[in-house]
Amino acid sequence: MTGEALPSVGFIGIGVMGGAMAGHLMDAGYKLRVHNRSASKCRVLADRGAELMASPGDVSAASDVVITMVGFPKDVEEIYLSPGGIVERARVGALLIDMTTSSRELAAGIYEAARARGVSACDAPVTGGDRGARDGTLSILFGGDEADYERALPLFRVMGKNIERFGPAGSGQTAKLANQIIIAGTMLGVCEGLAYAEKSGLDAAALIECVSSGAAGSWSLSNYGPRILKGDFAPGFFVKHFVKDMALAGESAASAGLSLKGLDAALEQYRRLAESGGAEDGTQGLYKLYRGREA
Amino acid sequence: MTGEALPSVGFIGIGVMGGAMAGHLMDAGYKLRVHNRSASKCRVLADRGAELMASPGDVSAASDVVITMVGFPKDVEEIYLSPGGIVERARVGALLIDMTTSSRELAAGIYEAARARGVSACDAPVTGGDRGARDGTLSILFGGDEADYERALPLFRVMGKNIERFGPAGSGQTAKLANQIIIAGTMLGVCEGLAYAEKSGLDAAALIECVSSGAAGSWSLSNYGPRILKGDFAPGFFVKHFVKDMALAGESAASAGLSLKGLDAALEQYRRLAESGGAEDGTQGLYKLYRGREA
Repeated sequence: MTGEALPSVGFIGIGVMGGAMAGHLMDAGYKLRVHNRSASKCRVLADRGAELMASPGDVSAASDVVITMVGFPKDVEEIYLSPGGIVERARVGALLIDMTTSSRELAAGIYEAARARGVSACDAPVTGGDRGARDGTLSILFGGDEADYERALPLFRVMGKNIERFGPAGSGQTAKLANQIIIAGTMLGVCEGLAYAEKSGLDAAALIECVSSGAAGSWSLSNYGPRILKGDFAPGFFVKHFVKDMALAGESAASAGLSLKGLDAALEQYRRLAESGGAEDGTQGLYKLYRGREA
Repeated sequence: MTGEALPSVGFIGIGVMGGAMAGHLMDAGYKLRVHNRSASKCRVLADRGAELMASPGDVSAASDVVITMVGFPKDVEEIYLSPGGIVERARVGALLIDMTTSSRELAAGIYEAARARGVSACDAPVTGGDRGARDGTLSILFGGDEADYERALPLFRVMGKNIERFGPAGSGQTAKLANQIIIAGTMLGVCEGLAYAEKSGLDAAALIECVSSGAAGSWSLSNYGPRILKGDFAPGFFVKHFVKDMALAGESAASAGLSLKGLDAALEQYRRLAESGGAEDGTQGLYKLYRGREA
């Protein structure tokens, strides 16, 4: 646990997810340099010995491996590709790992820009939400070179459980969007089914109990169903981020010639939710749209 | 296992589900009288000692408890309410249990018609599909009088695992429709996510492996995902029956003032599937619609 044999790691984006993930890396003995737009969120890690850096570029210049977990593709683009950013200031031979859910095209663009400077880049978005980040049980969906995958694996194993390489740079993002498409339909089904049950006067908690080990069962039903019935819409995963992911997925599907009616319906509903004040809710907040109709 | 203390049971509707459920009752020592529109499907049970009857009314006249598991609400209505049918020929004090997925209104109507003749009726649709029926692990969603629930429980415990009374006659159907609404969205998500993954050139089997223990996980993904990737669209649960259930759910939701966009999208897609030759597929056949676009 001296960390002498371990690469120096930079971690950019210390939110709900990133904070927990960076904490696991520190637990495993990695020396961290961290940066977050709101520096105050780094305090817990700084108190544990992480070095606070002034910018993403500063993190990059000082690290063997840079991990990023920020909000939106535009944030990814800015911290990686702007002058003085992560790519420009990276050490030759460094490995840049973006764990944000972003677009395949941007991931591929960062890969090429990094490669031109003798730097490796890959995409490794995750699934499993706040709980998975906290418990170190995230699924990690990797896109990039095989050698970089092997190099990143020890770090991934500290943060996650199901880890898979899907292909070249960008493939991790594609896999993550497929994951989000699956969740989009599932959340629609869960929220609509529970709304129908409650509106019909059934004991919806008993319904969850009775059906969740059967064909209607899902992670969403078991994890969000009880929160929904308690009126707990606190974010594990923000509506605003899910809207972003679904929009990316919709564009990507359309450009592949696929029309995804379920995804379209989910995106439309979640956009309505975001526009009516629910952007900062957790994704289970979708239920409010249906409950709202009763008022 | 002599069956002397057990009620005589009639079972009407010996299909994929009913055949397995009736078999479990015979295993448990119940003496069965059976009827099916196509009598040939009763052969296995008849070889084991079940008595083959010529009509639903004949079954009803000879049984303490009558269980029905047929296709559509119109079939339920016909066998229960037509002259010489189950209600008319039931013994005073008999218990009639419809396990078909049908409408709340029809279930309530049968309850009243039976009650007027000194007969008990209830609705107890199931979830868990062919596998649940075969393994005796169905969830059973009961609507009816409390006393009838207690009376039916020993039979339900032979056929299922999660058994719940949701309220008066019709409530079981309402709970089942809520279950189907949940599944509708989930199946959309699973089929669209896998279609996107395959179309994007990902290893969809690896995706299922990687994400099914996370937030995208569901019974549908774990059970139907691998069948979909193998091109196995054999029915556990028929598309034509699912379309019927979703249509019932949509009508019921609309009359409760709920607009369910996910359900609407799923019903529209499944209707397209049924109209393009997929009515006899299993519900995972939805995938064909997306795969078809590649051709």
